[in-house]
Amino acid sequence: MDIPATGAWRPDMPTAQRRFHTVLGDGRIFALEGGGHLDQVTIAYETWGNLDDSVSNAVLVCHALTGDAHAAGPSGAGQPTDGWWNDLIGPGKAIDTDRFFVVCANVLGGCQGTTGPASPHPADGQPYGSRFPVVSVRDMVRTQAALADHLGIDTWLSIVGGSMGGMQVLEWAVMFPHRLRSMINIASAASASPLQIGWSQIGRLAIALDPGWRGGDYYDAAVGEGPHRGLMLARRLAQIHYRSDESLHMRFGRSTVDRLDTFALWDRFQVEGYLDHHGQKLARRFDANSYLILNKAMDLHDVGRGRGGVAAAVSRIRCRSLVLSVDSDMLYTPRQQEELVGLLRASNLEVDHETIRSAHGHDGFLIEFDQLEPLVGDFLDEQLKG
Amino acid sequence: MDIPATGAWRPDMPTAQRRFHTVLGDGRIFALEGGGHLDQVTIAYETWGNLDDSVSNAVLVCHALTGDAHAAGPSGAGQPTDGWWNDLIGPGKAIDTDRFFVVCANVLGGCQGTTGPASPHPADGQPYGSRFPVVSVRDMVRTQAALADHLGIDTWLSIVGGSMGGMQVLEWAVMFPHRLRSMINIASAASASPLQIGWSQIGRLAIALDPGWRGGDYYDAAVGEGPHRGLMLARRLAQIHYRSDESLHMRFGRSTVDRLDTFALWDRFQVEGYLDHHGQKLARRFDANSYLILNKAMDLHDVGRGRGGVAAAVSRIRCRSLVLSVDSDMLYTPRQQEELVGLLRASNLEVDHETIRSAHGHDGFLIEFDQLEPLVGDFLDEQLKG
Repeated sequence: MDIPATGAWRPDMPTAQRRFHTVLGDGRIFALEGGGHLDQVTIAYETWGNLDDSVSNAVLVCHALTGDAHAAGPSGAGQPTDGWWNDLIGPGKAIDTDRFFVVCANVLGGCQGTTGPASPHPADGQPYGSRFPVVSVRDMVRTQAALADHLGIDTWLSIVGGSMGGMQVLEWAVMFPHRLRSMINIASAASASPLQIGWSQIGRLAIALDPGWRGGDYYDAAVGEGPHRGLMLARRLAQIHYRSDESLHMRFGRSTVDRLDTFALWDRFQVEGYLDHHGQKLARRFDANSYLILNKAMDLHDVGRGRGGVAAAVSRIRCRSLVLSVDSDMLYTPRQQEELVGLLRASNLEVDHETIRSAHGHDGFLIEFDQLEPLVGDFLDEQLKG
Repeated sequence: MDIPATGAWRPDMPTAQRRFHTVLGDGRIFALEGGGHLDQVTIAYETWGNLDDSVSNAVLVCHALTGDAHAAGPSGAGQPTDGWWNDLIGPGKAIDTDRFFVVCANVLGGCQGTTGPASPHPADGQPYGSRFPVVSVRDMVRTQAALADHLGIDTWLSIVGGSMGGMQVLEWAVMFPHRLRSMINIASAASASPLQIGWSQIGRLAIALDPGWRGGDYYDAAVGEGPHRGLMLARRLAQIHYRSDESLHMRFGRSTVDRLDTFALWDRFQVEGYLDHHGQKLARRFDANSYLILNKAMDLHDVGRGRGGVAAAVSRIRCRSLVLSVDSDMLYTPRQQEELVGLLRASNLEVDHETIRSAHGHDGFLIEFDQLEPLVGDFLDEQLKG
């Protein structure tokens, strides 16, 4: 049934060969949209390529829920995974590091170097745990804007991201209309739908149901294992929604892990083994509290909140857009990108909307590089020329 | 966040005003398809209307996962819910109890009167709990066939059911081709898909993650609460899949239970409150072990298992069919009913396939009575005449 994760994520795992920047608000605290604050914020980021003299070739890449700053490059010491967009970022690739200066930062609330629930609280040096405040996508974007200041980048040539990354892209365009010349928004939404919120809630409750969660204060290894089983369960659920009925059907059918001779309650079909595998994989590299905080940030995502609605918010945007859908996406349904495109066009903005044909659902934006490469590459080429 | 269920289901809840029949296999044990056996099987059932002299007007209604024998009639003592198909079964309704003799039995493994995990084990009088064996849809159907023998019904005019009920309907048609003249199969499938199995696994693991589950042996109130939180979580997940992106979007949008002023981690959107409500409601009337056993039975559903595949199995069928899809069903996708219809037609069987137009997803078969009433009513009329 439920296999304990070995070598699960711990707060003392070595960090990658990243660069760090410490961000603070004007009042020396970083006040958050939801009412909380942080006394110190450190952002982990990576860069590729060189910033040109006119500071006109900078591209910001925003990562999705369980991504991190390591968008490109190999895995290695303290770097648990290969670059999550290796196929798209690199010399001669769509996001061409020979021509662009590419930046990717781990989001606020994450667990790969940027301040998050596992970071030490300045007051006592112990992990925040349950003390970590709710953050919003807007808070994430404000830390990225501070990083842009630090790097001397006033205006991005483009800001690019899918899923939760696309939420950041959109908030950038609304919060800082003159700081980006274009955006590429992939398989994302102007606001989280009740379907997404419902699934998200179930993942969060699965973590909270795990006795190892301890209300969020589980970092002391002496008190026991963390909520790995709950996190694995949340990931299994997400993993289904990243794929599609068709892709699971084609790949697994009704084949079984255990021989279907006699039936035991916890004997597994292949699809169950697949979900177990993805659950374990995440538990080895991700912090359950970050999962809670970032899922909540996504649920709260609504570009229209406090701005008189989505249409009024989108009317602030000034840049060109490329919006991409995946036709089989059941998590960020094409309805949501159509809504966004409609809002952009209603504001007389120039927007290209293309649909990736894929059996693989939401994960199409991490799989269908044959289609992504020319769409993203050509769009960025145009921005560089234009 | 997670509200404990008050007045949750207990094995000593009073049973409804049902009738009971004790089934035993030839060897005085009931041997199960999966290798286990039961020493005693009692079936709880209800009937409506009168069996005619020629025994030609009997209709069997098969219930879905959390349904029971109480398909029609009011709630009352020991009967926690109104009849789940009240709108379809009754005098003058589609399944007209003035003309048909209607039977509905609680499934094997259930918790509303038929032998299940909470029933006393004959050896020691204590609940089966973890000792309850895996059952299959075929096992359920064999208990229903024994009940039909007991009632003197050799041939059903029709067997009708949706979802897990449709799985039973199909197995009836394959296992006992000459014991039914027609079937109505609604929002169901020839076999469970990996998508359904994946979601089902997550629901089961949520129950197992609840410390109150205790490996399945939680019935003694003295040892603590049962796995209500885990069951509630499983139900929340199922409830989403019974609906659709569109219906949740239309009904809830992004409205909140708690005021969206400051953001707390466990503040809720309306859709979360809705899922909480459905979780609690189920925990008050359903046994978590039955939920595990019946979900496993559904995952194992494959009409082709041990019969040379689905096509060979379906070729055994002799009756007419009405197959119904719900266009927005994401759990039992129209693809699955199309597959079944294709198999039936390939066997030169007479089959009507109709699609219910609904925003409500899978639950359309419990909601769209304006469409169901004429489809089911006209089909049954024809069978009575023909």
